[in-house]
Amino acid sequence: MTDTTDTIFGKIIDGDIPCHKVYEDKHVFAFLDVGPLSTGHTLVIPKQRVAQLHDLADEAAAAIGRVLPRLCRAVLSATGATAYNVLQNNGSAAHQAVFHVHFHIIPKFEDAGLDIVWNAGSLDNDSGAKLAALIRSTLDSDNG
Amino acid sequence: MTDTTDTIFGKIIDGDIPCHKVYEDKHVFAFLDVGPLSTGHTLVIPKQRVAQLHDLADEAAAAIGRVLPRLCRAVLSATGATAYNVLQNNGSAAHQAVFHVHFHIIPKFEDAGLDIVWNAGSLDNDSGAKLAALIRSTLDSDNG
Repeated sequence: MTDTTDTIFGKIIDGDIPCHKVYEDKHVFAFLDVGPLSTGHTLVIPKQRVAQLHDLADEAAAAIGRVLPRLCRAVLSATGATAYNVLQNNGSAAHQAVFHVHFHIIPKFEDAGLDIVWNAGSLDNDSGAKLAALIRSTLDSDNG
Repeated sequence: MTDTTDTIFGKIIDGDIPCHKVYEDKHVFAFLDVGPLSTGHTLVIPKQRVAQLHDLADEAAAAIGRVLPRLCRAVLSATGATAYNVLQNNGSAAHQAVFHVHFHIIPKFEDAGLDIVWNAGSLDNDSGAKLAALIRSTLDSDNG
């Protein structure tokens, strides 16, 4: 796991950098993104200081999952948005800029929000069967 | 809540439509996307049949959150990817196409994956303080 003690998000959790906090519990901290893609753009982060989702402990990941619907309801209610994206980026190549796990809640309005380019391919049956078997075998040998 | 019994994902959970399954537990089902953005593109869905994340029960949301790191590790291991995005879309305007909650795990390679356009604004302090207070007050009155 990566020690992300020194990221800006670690300092926000510690209260060393101010933020517009919207939620906090034992495992989770949430605050407004200061560089929002739209009004209400919120960041939901674990208190556990790891860079990427695959390094996050089960308990911390479950705590984030549990509170996401409630946070989404609050963001929708506060902004009047009816559509939104939840996005979590891992690695510079995937647009991660701060190396502490974070989920974006991004309200979508006609003129603001997340823009996505969706260049879908097609999964052929043989490749899919082989790949799914490989993923399943990896899961079976993962003891957390 | 929206009854999504009749979506293709409901039929996949029921076994009425085949899929390349990679994981299943009491609350969660995961399988390969047949229209992948990249090799290993995986969909993680709750067995609870609701259209959007803000409608999902806490227990189902926690179960998805808990297993996401493990699924991400398996997808990375099987594909050799080192970067990836987790994306969850809500509403047609936000690119939701199947109205049953789903999280995409999308490996990022040089020539394939999720393309994002990031037009960030700036949050001024007064607006941020007011909006955060509004979201907090909404959270306080949300009994799940």
